[in-house]
Amino acid sequence: MTNTKKLAFASDYQQGAHPDILKRLSEINLQPHAGYGTDEISASAREKIRAACAAPEADVFFLAGGTQTNALIIGACLQSYQGVLAAETGHVSLHEAGAVELGGHKVMTLPQQEGKLSAETVRGAFRTFAEDENRDHMVMPGMVYLSQPTEYGTLYSLKELEEISRVTHAAGALLYVDGARLAYALGCPANDVTLADLARLCDAFYIGGTKCGALFGEAVVFPKKDTVPHFFTIIKQHGALLAKGFVTGLQFDVLFTDGLYEFCGRHAIAVADRIRDALSEKGYAFAIDSPTNQLFLLLDRAQEARLTEKIEMSFWERPDEDHVVMRIATCWATTEEEADALIALL
Amino acid sequence: MTNTKKLAFASDYQQGAHPDILKRLSEINLQPHAGYGTDEISASAREKIRAACAAPEADVFFLAGGTQTNALIIGACLQSYQGVLAAETGHVSLHEAGAVELGGHKVMTLPQQEGKLSAETVRGAFRTFAEDENRDHMVMPGMVYLSQPTEYGTLYSLKELEEISRVTHAAGALLYVDGARLAYALGCPANDVTLADLARLCDAFYIGGTKCGALFGEAVVFPKKDTVPHFFTIIKQHGALLAKGFVTGLQFDVLFTDGLYEFCGRHAIAVADRIRDALSEKGYAFAIDSPTNQLFLLLDRAQEARLTEKIEMSFWERPDEDHVVMRIATCWATTEEEADALIALL
Amino acid sequence: MTNTKKLAFASDYQQGAHPDILKRLSEINLQPHAGYGTDEISASAREKIRAACAAPEADVFFLAGGTQTNALIIGACLQSYQGVLAAETGHVSLHEAGAVELGGHKVMTLPQQEGKLSAETVRGAFRTFAEDENRDHMVMPGMVYLSQPTEYGTLYSLKELEEISRVTHAAGALLYVDGARLAYALGCPANDVTLADLARLCDAFYIGGTKCGALFGEAVVFPKKDTVPHFFTIIKQHGALLAKGFVTGLQFDVLFTDGLYEFCGRHAIAVADRIRDALSEKGYAFAIDSPTNQLFLLLDRAQEARLTEKIEMSFWERPDEDHVVMRIATCWATTEEEADALIALL
Amino acid sequence: MTNTKKLAFASDYQQGAHPDILKRLSEINLQPHAGYGTDEISASAREKIRAACAAPEADVFFLAGGTQTNALIIGACLQSYQGVLAAETGHVSLHEAGAVELGGHKVMTLPQQEGKLSAETVRGAFRTFAEDENRDHMVMPGMVYLSQPTEYGTLYSLKELEEISRVTHAAGALLYVDGARLAYALGCPANDVTLADLARLCDAFYIGGTKCGALFGEAVVFPKKDTVPHFFTIIKQHGALLAKGFVTGLQFDVLFTDGLYEFCGRHAIAVADRIRDALSEKGYAFAIDSPTNQLFLLLDRAQEARLTEKIEMSFWERPDEDHVVMRIATCWATTEEEADALIALL
Repeated sequence: MTNTKKLAFASDYQQGAHPDILKRLSEINLQPHAGYGTDEISASAREKIRAACAAPEADVFFLAGGTQTNALIIGACLQSYQGVLAAETGHVSLHEAGAVELGGHKVMTLPQQEGKLSAETVRGAFRTFAEDENRDHMVMPGMVYLSQPTEYGTLYSLKELEEISRVTHAAGALLYVDGARLAYALGCPANDVTLADLARLCDAFYIGGTKCGALFGEAVVFPKKDTVPHFFTIIKQHGALLAKGFVTGLQFDVLFTDGLYEFCGRHAIAVADRIRDALSEKGYAFAIDSPTNQLFLLLDRAQEARLTEKIEMSFWERPDEDHVVMRIATCWATTEEEADALIALL
Repeated sequence: MTNTKKLAFASDYQQGAHPDILKRLSEINLQPHAGYGTDEISASAREKIRAACAAPEADVFFLAGGTQTNALIIGACLQSYQGVLAAETGHVSLHEAGAVELGGHKVMTLPQQEGKLSAETVRGAFRTFAEDENRDHMVMPGMVYLSQPTEYGTLYSLKELEEISRVTHAAGALLYVDGARLAYALGCPANDVTLADLARLCDAFYIGGTKCGALFGEAVVFPKKDTVPHFFTIIKQHGALLAKGFVTGLQFDVLFTDGLYEFCGRHAIAVADRIRDALSEKGYAFAIDSPTNQLFLLLDRAQEARLTEKIEMSFWERPDEDHVVMRIATCWATTEEEADALIALL
Repeated sequence: MTNTKKLAFASDYQQGAHPDILKRLSEINLQPHAGYGTDEISASAREKIRAACAAPEADVFFLAGGTQTNALIIGACLQSYQGVLAAETGHVSLHEAGAVELGGHKVMTLPQQEGKLSAETVRGAFRTFAEDENRDHMVMPGMVYLSQPTEYGTLYSLKELEEISRVTHAAGALLYVDGARLAYALGCPANDVTLADLARLCDAFYIGGTKCGALFGEAVVFPKKDTVPHFFTIIKQHGALLAKGFVTGLQFDVLFTDGLYEFCGRHAIAVADRIRDALSEKGYAFAIDSPTNQLFLLLDRAQEARLTEKIEMSFWERPDEDHVVMRIATCWATTEEEADALIALL
Repeated sequence: MTNTKKLAFASDYQQGAHPDILKRLSEINLQPHAGYGTDEISASAREKIRAACAAPEADVFFLAGGTQTNALIIGACLQSYQGVLAAETGHVSLHEAGAVELGGHKVMTLPQQEGKLSAETVRGAFRTFAEDENRDHMVMPGMVYLSQPTEYGTLYSLKELEEISRVTHAAGALLYVDGARLAYALGCPANDVTLADLARLCDAFYIGGTKCGALFGEAVVFPKKDTVPHFFTIIKQHGALLAKGFVTGLQFDVLFTDGLYEFCGRHAIAVADRIRDALSEKGYAFAIDSPTNQLFLLLDRAQEARLTEKIEMSFWERPDEDHVVMRIATCWATTEEEADALIALL
């Protein structure tokens, strides 16, 4: 239960939606809309996303949450005898309760560095499979799963993404990018990967709404038309089709109007930067060097006791008896006042 | 695409949420909440639902949509070798794109009358299975699926539900009621089945939000605690767990405050009654005698041409060359003015 | 438990293998063979089957049993959002314990006559789906399942099969024929459908071994090469790949040498014909007019009592209080002496 | 394709069945037997296995192959939200084409030593899960999978197995032992784990037939009655039920008569011992110190070239540019003459 007396930095999904979304929702609330995402607002949102991705032929769908989105895209893109390559720290590997396996596919985990896969690691996995004489008795890697930013807040550079894309496609596999926190990559000065780059390099990706300004919702983008035939029915079959699809469509329509999505990201990054600088100045150590909205503090027992008394953070891991890694997350809703209060407590 | 020039009576999921829900959402929008439904608003909603169901030990969960809810409950309650008995017109049989089968279970269809199963039909299905010498090579019926109101707007009486409950439990199976439109049963004068009756007679049911005043969302009720252990993880594994669970919880918290849920139902029924009376008076025929918010008109070609020009209805079926069945649905959001306008067009 | 004092006519899978198979097995028993069906005997069997089917490019695989074969072929040929059309009396509909649904697909049952689907019924099912405005919320029929002979011992004529093939392919679906008892069609004078016809008209079929002379085993035929890519791995993934694939291959190699497979069928049919004639002569009634190795007797209580005392038959159904339908099955192993003994008891 | 000019030491599943099995099969070949394993021979086999395991109440089932057996037992024992812990070298982890994942469950791989898990590793995995605050978003370990002997030919000692059993049950999970090559453990002087020990310490295990003297077949043992209700139907549903169950039953009836199963194991071990001694004497290196029927040779390029010219072995891995690991396997069918010939070539 959230303790309202503490400063709330535990995650980036604690508040509702950007006020512009609620405002628009109130305006159209009592008007009738066609069902299942066939409405005009959803059509408008799809067009705006296609434009932002420079992918005029893209198929765009709106889903409710990240695990659902990962499971549907991975399941729909893989053949029954294929699995998905992912970092051992990937969200699909660890924190989706086996959703990919429920769909019948193995998550084939690979070693990572600060949450990232290297092109070399990916190439090695494809080569190992291709050269194994028993490969017909094994799960074939059919897709590579990345997250941008990663679960550790790190970013793939454009060059890294281009290499992984090349390696993946050379192996006849598909590249999929989980963008649950994509606004916090797009809004980060260190980032050089645009939506148009993702559309050019990936076979599928999603633009996260839940953690980036929406009440809920993720926008699936298949840059090439008909990448997955009958995806609408697949969504329905998985229980993921909302009757009032206009509610999800509307949120992305607002987020992709006048650059609100990137604005949300830039705000959270600016606040995170201030907090990171203050932490560095006061001598705090970081477990990972993350440029986005998640900061991973390596605290000793004394620091832990002092900070957790006043600040709500997420427990990450305990590397040894004397230390703990805690995560601080900012988001579109974090105020400067909250950042000031946090900094004052350091 | 919704034609805004027509009167919108095509379905009961065309508008957003009851204004009280948006108001409450705006109030708490920027406050921090614990994730995944562990927040205080969701806890409050669960308590109110338990009270309304006179089931203080009930496990209550919030999901996003009806097909998702049906697939999760049916899959979680059945053993791997079991199937679910349902009317051949049941939503799970026809209009969920095979969601139950995706989970590995057969929907075992039974003949119905106006959308309803009889206790005798259900008893016969269990007996036929029990007496078949090949039953170990067959799918065992492990659950009975009903909807209240049914897909045809009809209602099970308390007596009918008690008999089906008895027959089902005598066979060692579970009873599950799909309440996608439950408000329109609860708000109907012809109904004698209360939430407490459902909690007493069923092993699981859901209280529909999407069609009954919410933006989206359904409340799953397992009257007996721990009917399905680890259902939280099952929800997550199926991609059905919303990070911002407080958004769904809040909607049911509002709907179960001061009787709003039943109020929504009563309003829609009163409007439907006015329309039904006007239709009868003007000599229109009904395909089914439904007491709830869905009216099934049997129109000849001339009537069809005249009405569909001005009124948006749902096509249901074409029983012969000269007739069509069209559905008119009212809901919590239908105004008296809209009803007047409709009646004026008849 | 088999009562050895009775005449054994309960089924066509009560004895082991045709003696030629055991003889050949003994000859090669201690020689080393490559694993998983990559051996030379299996290669030879595949060539013989391709020749018998006049399908030189066919992919041929050997599996262990009928339910396994049906589930694998149906699952491998359908897209995730598709189901299979089958007679409501089809083996996949009733007596495979939900194996197709376990794989995630709906068996979409259709009305039948004496176990057979008509082209008109199949065309109607495709048309109904195509014309339904809600079809994107429904299971798409992607395959038609037939059995030859049917579960009732009846046969599709070449003309009927050609029509169903045309209707199915016109709808963009696949045609699959379950040949669990195919020898008893091929060996039946009333039959005009050859293996080459099946290869020409179907997308997949299987040549049953278990009930037609083998210890166990079914030969899957995909007439067009690469109909299902990586089917070998799919077999492995389903646990259906035998390490000693040469044991299955050898059985089909023997059955397809010097016409043994059809010989087994002709023998069983000749014996069944003698029994059928004797039954007719003595005034017994038949529930179904079946020309193959299964006879469905409609017995009154007195006949039932008399016959079941000495003859082991299969219970089929009890159409009313005074009658029962019992099945007599002959097979490749039924001797003339057994037929004589049975006839003497009538 | 097997090259008959080479000595065949590539695997332990290259020959047919122990001659006693073919002899018995020929004797009963033309007698009628009840179907689906309900025959008297299968009943006798089950009784003999119960006696050998000192588990008079055990449920015993016969299946066709190892991957099938693993997938069925693991799937039937786990709850939908659970996964199975296994060594990263386990057969289920690597060489079953994702059969466990096809059933919806994650294989949760753990580090191993010479193919074995330690009790400490297993305890750690359970503890890590139990202590993770996100465990409700993760796959719960519900079973431990071991193989005896392991994929590397090594053996768990009784003490090791007792510890793993204790740790597993303390965590509320089940212990399952894959005995694909169990005869080669039981027949090995270094082994101190009996069938009765397995029945006492495990919740499920299987006695391998395919690699240990049978044509095909594995005997599943659930020491406690009704560990998995309706397992017969689960077998059918997975397409794993053979119509002529007596063929599998008979093989185990013969193998468990007069100690033939252990005799087969002892023979293979004695031959392997002779070969191992000769290899050691001539200075060959071993990659793993395996006491059973699989020998893992670490060969340099010259040795590789010389040996592979005359001896068929299995490629295992290439640890560096200059070396290769090749496997030699003996079995019940390996003759002293073949061993002599092999030794002469070293």
